[in-house]
Amino acid sequence: MSGAGFDRHITIFSPEGRVYQVEYAFKAINTTNLTAVAVKGKNTAVIAVQKRVPDSLVIRDSVTSIYQISKSVACCAIGIVPDAKFQVKRAQSEAASFKYKNGYDMPVELLAKKMADLNQYYTQNAEMRCLGVGLLLISFDDEKGPQVFRVDPAGCFRGMNAVALGTKQGPATTCFEKKIKKKEQWESTHPVEIAIEALQTSLGIDVRANDIEVVAVTKDTVQKLTDEDVEQYLSLIASRD
Amino acid sequence: MSGAGFDRHITIFSPEGRVYQVEYAFKAINTTNLTAVAVKGKNTAVIAVQKRVPDSLVIRDSVTSIYQISKSVACCAIGIVPDAKFQVKRAQSEAASFKYKNGYDMPVELLAKKMADLNQYYTQNAEMRCLGVGLLLISFDDEKGPQVFRVDPAGCFRGMNAVALGTKQGPATTCFEKKIKKKEQWESTHPVEIAIEALQTSLGIDVRANDIEVVAVTKDTVQKLTDEDVEQYLSLIASRD
Amino acid sequence: MSGAGFDRHITIFSPEGRVYQVEYAFKAINTTNLTAVAVKGKNTAVIAVQKRVPDSLVIRDSVTSIYQISKSVACCAIGIVPDAKFQVKRAQSEAASFKYKNGYDMPVELLAKKMADLNQYYTQNAEMRCLGVGLLLISFDDEKGPQVFRVDPAGCFRGMNAVALGTKQGPATTCFEKKIKKKEQWESTHPVEIAIEALQTSLGIDVRANDIEVVAVTKDTVQKLTDEDVEQYLSLIASRD
Amino acid sequence: MSGAGFDRHITIFSPEGRVYQVEYAFKAINTTNLTAVAVKGKNTAVIAVQKRVPDSLVIRDSVTSIYQISKSVACCAIGIVPDAKFQVKRAQSEAASFKYKNGYDMPVELLAKKMADLNQYYTQNAEMRCLGVGLLLISFDDEKGPQVFRVDPAGCFRGMNAVALGTKQGPATTCFEKKIKKKEQWESTHPVEIAIEALQTSLGIDVRANDIEVVAVTKDTVQKLTDEDVEQYLSLIASRD
Amino acid sequence: MSGAGFDRHITIFSPEGRVYQVEYAFKAINTTNLTAVAVKGKNTAVIAVQKRVPDSLVIRDSVTSIYQISKSVACCAIGIVPDAKFQVKRAQSEAASFKYKNGYDMPVELLAKKMADLNQYYTQNAEMRCLGVGLLLISFDDEKGPQVFRVDPAGCFRGMNAVALGTKQGPATTCFEKKIKKKEQWESTHPVEIAIEALQTSLGIDVRANDIEVVAVTKDTVQKLTDEDVEQYLSLIASRD
Amino acid sequence: MSGAGFDRHITIFSPEGRVYQVEYAFKAINTTNLTAVAVKGKNTAVIAVQKRVPDSLVIRDSVTSIYQISKSVACCAIGIVPDAKFQVKRAQSEAASFKYKNGYDMPVELLAKKMADLNQYYTQNAEMRCLGVGLLLISFDDEKGPQVFRVDPAGCFRGMNAVALGTKQGPATTCFEKKIKKKEQWESTHPVEIAIEALQTSLGIDVRANDIEVVAVTKDTVQKLTDEDVEQYLSLIASRD
Amino acid sequence: MSGAGFDRHITIFSPEGRVYQVEYAFKAINTTNLTAVAVKGKNTAVIAVQKRVPDSLVIRDSVTSIYQISKSVACCAIGIVPDAKFQVKRAQSEAASFKYKNGYDMPVELLAKKMADLNQYYTQNAEMRCLGVGLLLISFDDEKGPQVFRVDPAGCFRGMNAVALGTKQGPATTCFEKKIKKKEQWESTHPVEIAIEALQTSLGIDVRANDIEVVAVTKDTVQKLTDEDVEQYLSLIASRD
Repeated sequence: MSGAGFDRHITIFSPEGRVYQVEYAFKAINTTNLTAVAVKGKNTAVIAVQKRVPDSLVIRDSVTSIYQISKSVACCAIGIVPDAKFQVKRAQSEAASFKYKNGYDMPVELLAKKMADLNQYYTQNAEMRCLGVGLLLISFDDEKGPQVFRVDPAGCFRGMNAVALGTKQGPATTCFEKKIKKKEQWESTHPVEIAIEALQTSLGIDVRANDIEVVAVTKDTVQKLTDEDVEQYLSLIASRD
Repeated sequence: MSGAGFDRHITIFSPEGRVYQVEYAFKAINTTNLTAVAVKGKNTAVIAVQKRVPDSLVIRDSVTSIYQISKSVACCAIGIVPDAKFQVKRAQSEAASFKYKNGYDMPVELLAKKMADLNQYYTQNAEMRCLGVGLLLISFDDEKGPQVFRVDPAGCFRGMNAVALGTKQGPATTCFEKKIKKKEQWESTHPVEIAIEALQTSLGIDVRANDIEVVAVTKDTVQKLTDEDVEQYLSLIASRD
Repeated sequence: MSGAGFDRHITIFSPEGRVYQVEYAFKAINTTNLTAVAVKGKNTAVIAVQKRVPDSLVIRDSVTSIYQISKSVACCAIGIVPDAKFQVKRAQSEAASFKYKNGYDMPVELLAKKMADLNQYYTQNAEMRCLGVGLLLISFDDEKGPQVFRVDPAGCFRGMNAVALGTKQGPATTCFEKKIKKKEQWESTHPVEIAIEALQTSLGIDVRANDIEVVAVTKDTVQKLTDEDVEQYLSLIASRD
Repeated sequence: MSGAGFDRHITIFSPEGRVYQVEYAFKAINTTNLTAVAVKGKNTAVIAVQKRVPDSLVIRDSVTSIYQISKSVACCAIGIVPDAKFQVKRAQSEAASFKYKNGYDMPVELLAKKMADLNQYYTQNAEMRCLGVGLLLISFDDEKGPQVFRVDPAGCFRGMNAVALGTKQGPATTCFEKKIKKKEQWESTHPVEIAIEALQTSLGIDVRANDIEVVAVTKDTVQKLTDEDVEQYLSLIASRD
Repeated sequence: MSGAGFDRHITIFSPEGRVYQVEYAFKAINTTNLTAVAVKGKNTAVIAVQKRVPDSLVIRDSVTSIYQISKSVACCAIGIVPDAKFQVKRAQSEAASFKYKNGYDMPVELLAKKMADLNQYYTQNAEMRCLGVGLLLISFDDEKGPQVFRVDPAGCFRGMNAVALGTKQGPATTCFEKKIKKKEQWESTHPVEIAIEALQTSLGIDVRANDIEVVAVTKDTVQKLTDEDVEQYLSLIASRD
Repeated sequence: MSGAGFDRHITIFSPEGRVYQVEYAFKAINTTNLTAVAVKGKNTAVIAVQKRVPDSLVIRDSVTSIYQISKSVACCAIGIVPDAKFQVKRAQSEAASFKYKNGYDMPVELLAKKMADLNQYYTQNAEMRCLGVGLLLISFDDEKGPQVFRVDPAGCFRGMNAVALGTKQGPATTCFEKKIKKKEQWESTHPVEIAIEALQTSLGIDVRANDIEVVAVTKDTVQKLTDEDVEQYLSLIASRD
Repeated sequence: MSGAGFDRHITIFSPEGRVYQVEYAFKAINTTNLTAVAVKGKNTAVIAVQKRVPDSLVIRDSVTSIYQISKSVACCAIGIVPDAKFQVKRAQSEAASFKYKNGYDMPVELLAKKMADLNQYYTQNAEMRCLGVGLLLISFDDEKGPQVFRVDPAGCFRGMNAVALGTKQGPATTCFEKKIKKKEQWESTHPVEIAIEALQTSLGIDVRANDIEVVAVTKDTVQKLTDEDVEQYLSLIASRD
């Protein structure tokens, strides 16, 4: 076995300087088999994520990977579902506590940093396992405009122009990279369109409006798109091809 | 052995990102060999669950898998019996404490979320094992009407139109899925009838009134059906076929 | 070995969802090689249990498996003797504390539940091993009349019409089940007679008065039967056959 | 190996429901290779125990297995010597504390129970090993007359008519059992004589006065017999044969 | 395997007196595959470090290995990124706390010592793993002028004239050593030039301005060089060869 | 291996009822390869112990195995040197604290008992290893005259007429036993002479004054013998042979 | 392997009574490959230690093995560098705290004892590993004149006339032993000369002034010798041969 015993203790180095449990936590992100993308546009930040209702008995509205963290921050959490809920609750609590103490909304960068710090702690301390969940955070910052952050189980966070997370993270990233090279076209396309297209391309199937969830954050609003809105974007993408 | 040692410590990831002890906890749900179903109707939420009295010496009334959590919430707990009682007591205590603090009954969704959060904690922390028990929670919400939730040992909770739990969870779910497709028929049938039929079908045996327990929650009442009531439904189902 | 390592840690699941240490605790009940029975009659609840004095040097009166828990509750504890004493002391303390707080005797059902809860805790927490002891609790409840409860190391408790515990638990249970079917005869026979006969039958030997202990609880009294009383019942049973 | 790993952790059950570490603690009682007996007579309780001075350099008086616990209780502790001293100190402290709180001497039965409870705790808790020591406690109770108790590492205690402990526990017990059958003779013989004879018989050697220690408790006194007294009894026994 | 089990516990010695986990932590520094250098000039201290943006989606400005610790101290942290952020935050907090208590900036030597002490603690204590990160700290001290310190996971810190850290630490060090021998030339060359050249030489590739980050600390300023400034130095180096 | 794994945990029983770690601690007493003896005379108690200065660089006076514990108690500690110092410091602190509380010197028997109790604790508790050190304590008691005690790592203590400890403990004990049989001669010989002779005999070499340390305690003094005094005794012994 | 598993737990005895982890800590002293010596003269105590600057980039003055502990005590710490710094800081803090409490400098013997006690604690307690560092402490005591102490990882401390520590400890000790035999010559030679010569001899190479550090403590001063001073001694030694 590759880990040779170094992977059975929560937080020790292997001889190559790797911490196996952290690497396994990344694999846990894919266990729910979902893909999410986020795009930072000129005036809008967007998250689009697969929605897979396990069976027809589940109430559709109770299945979601997108959560509102504060008045101006939305978050997509992919991975072990209860870990995701735990992370989201923590993020909400951090944001609320910041607002209470400082009187203004917690900037999304600070929030991403805080969530990453908490994850780092689990990688160093033997008491609890890492959380098997990745986060995408979007917001509209008064000074910096739309923003997109990614937080991983190892405790990394990054500001992104566009980002993918989950099972089809590879193809979606490639798709983004191709598009972002054509800078003008990138800037002139609405980020919701870019996000939905990337998701569709990476999944390699015809996506229908109720297979995905899309949230867009602009200067004043955090808004979940209705199925009709999503359908319009899908038609637009289909017609354009 | 499949777990290769990764399953002998309470909370570590295997190289595939799985937490084995959590998966084993799911298996523990079936160790008491019971099946439970819950159905959300238009005005009523229903739980129906097998009642298996181990032998004729046991006092029938002392054997139950259904518990009242608060004035408006009923719960069915399947799995390791003492774990089930522990969970139920905890749920009752959470609900009572909420009522005391806020002056109104704890909404069932909040309660389901709370119980799921507690379960998640056991999956991350090495101190105590997960609880080998699944919960079905039903209630009548003033705003949202009847509601059905499922909480599992991993810490997931879901709002459901109908749900099955336990040994015959597969067949019962299939049964529900077939019925729910015929939407009109679904809505026009009383949820108690649906629940009892699904239970009977999945068990593949003739169910008698005293083999099952049925609780129905409506706007004003949480009511356990008498054997006579159950018998009437059974006759109805039999006659209809 | 069947446990394959899953049985050497106090509280983890095996891949089949079993907790081995709890199962082994059940085996510990039989290590003292005793059998006990309890019967709930119309006006009387009875415990009858083997008394085995290890050798002629031991003072007979100091050997007992039956303890008075409160003014109205008697208890038989079978298994590892020091564990039994520990459990009994705990039960006495719980009952006394309840009385002190509430001004009336702790109902036996509540007490059984409390003892079961304490056992459940040991099955989930790694700090201490489970107690290798089973309890039979009998009482006379003002509202419900005579009552019989069984509490096991896993944390289960059950109200029973009749119950057996220990090495010959199987034959004694069978014996009870045969008798309870003939409902009229069951109800017309004095529970002390039923209990003693079941014990005698299951042991497969001629029982003498000083081989067993019998305690009967009625509305007003918790009373240990004298050897003469027991002898009368034994004669009655013998003559009847 | 018989224990197969179940004997290397302080407090877990083996698949047969045994706690190996407790059983090994019993073996530790014999590591000092001593035998002790105690006899309850009509007006007197007696302990007689081998005295083995390791070499001629040791001061005779500093070697003893018998300790006074309170004004009316004497105790013989056999096994790992420092464990024995620890137990004795604890017993003295419990007795003193009881006297202080209640104003009268701690009844020996209560003391035996308390010491047994403390031992039981070590068998359940992983923190500390069991004590490798057995206790014989004798006293004269105002109500019950002479009393003899035995406390073992598992946490058991028993009232006894006569009892043996240590390497030759088997033969000494047999010797007592033979004698106690002849009830009249038993009652008419002085318990000191019985105790010394049993010790001598079980050891299978000619015992001299300074090879044994004898303590007798009567209504008013706890008294260590002088070598002369012991010699007289030895002569008496020898002459009688 | 070389470690033979001595490397699987966080902090024990191997028979040769080595602490393996500490050595593995050094390997972790190279897992992000970056190289950093720092040079102490007459009036300026400089850090130059590779900047590798993982893909075109990441916002360039959010990727950096250089952090400002206080008004006069800059720091480069190479290794596991979340560990690096953790270390930097700690350093900032130590510096701020010192300023608050003493009213003047924390001297960089003291800060380096403090960070090293914290690392030493992890090597001795079993509770948490070592941090897989190396630090370069630069500052301008009012009395001692420019200063450069290196802090490693083992808890060592050293004042340096020039220092390299990371994957190409070897070649960069060699490069420095060659240059520093020609003392006059060394002193007459601007430290930024020396640093960039060493980085370029060790990497063995043509470096472009946006492949590296350069920070220079002088008496009054801590300044990140713009891409234009860096480009000028690169041209200067190219022209000189 | 003899211990078969039972010797690798600090405090568990082996199947034969042995605690291996305690037995290994006894072996640690001999690791410094010293021998000490103590003799109780009519008016004097004496300790004589080898003094082995590792090399000529060590300051002679800083090497000693004998320590003054209180005004009237001297102690010789043989074994792992730092453990010895730790024990001695503890003994001094116990004695001082006793004096402070009670206003008179701590009797040596009480002190020996206390030190033995502390050792016993280490044998039962898994937290810390046993101390690899044996103690000889001598004193002059106002009531009992000269006294000699031995305390070992298992937690035993014994009053002795004469005692040996360390590598040559066997031969020295034999030597004492031979002499003590000739009672008159024993009592008429000065204990210092007996002690030195026993040490010399057991070591099997010609002892010189500066190879040994001798301390004598009489009614009023605790006195270290000068080299001249020792030399006189050595001459006396030599001349006598 | 020699340790056979006894060397993998921090503080347990091997069957021969050895504590392996402590022995491995001694090996750690040599991992930095340095040698130090200390000499006690009539009016001066001296430490001389190799100084090995890892490469030309390191600032010479930041590399030292000699630290001032208090106004009158200097210390040389050889071994794992961060452990050494930790020990030195602890020593400084103990000395400062003593001064504050008592109003006069902590005598060096007391300080050495304290540091040794702290080391002993690590050898007995499983919580933290031993420190891989040896200490030489020198001072001028008002009453006893110059003093030299050695403290090792096992918790031993010794007053010395001369002492060596580190890789070439053997040859240096031999060298001292030869010289100290010629007592007059020893006393008439300046201790700095003796120390430097012993260091040079043991290293077997021509030592230059900047290869070593020398600190001398006299009645009033703790002084580091300049390179010029050292050079003079080196010339003196060379000329004398």
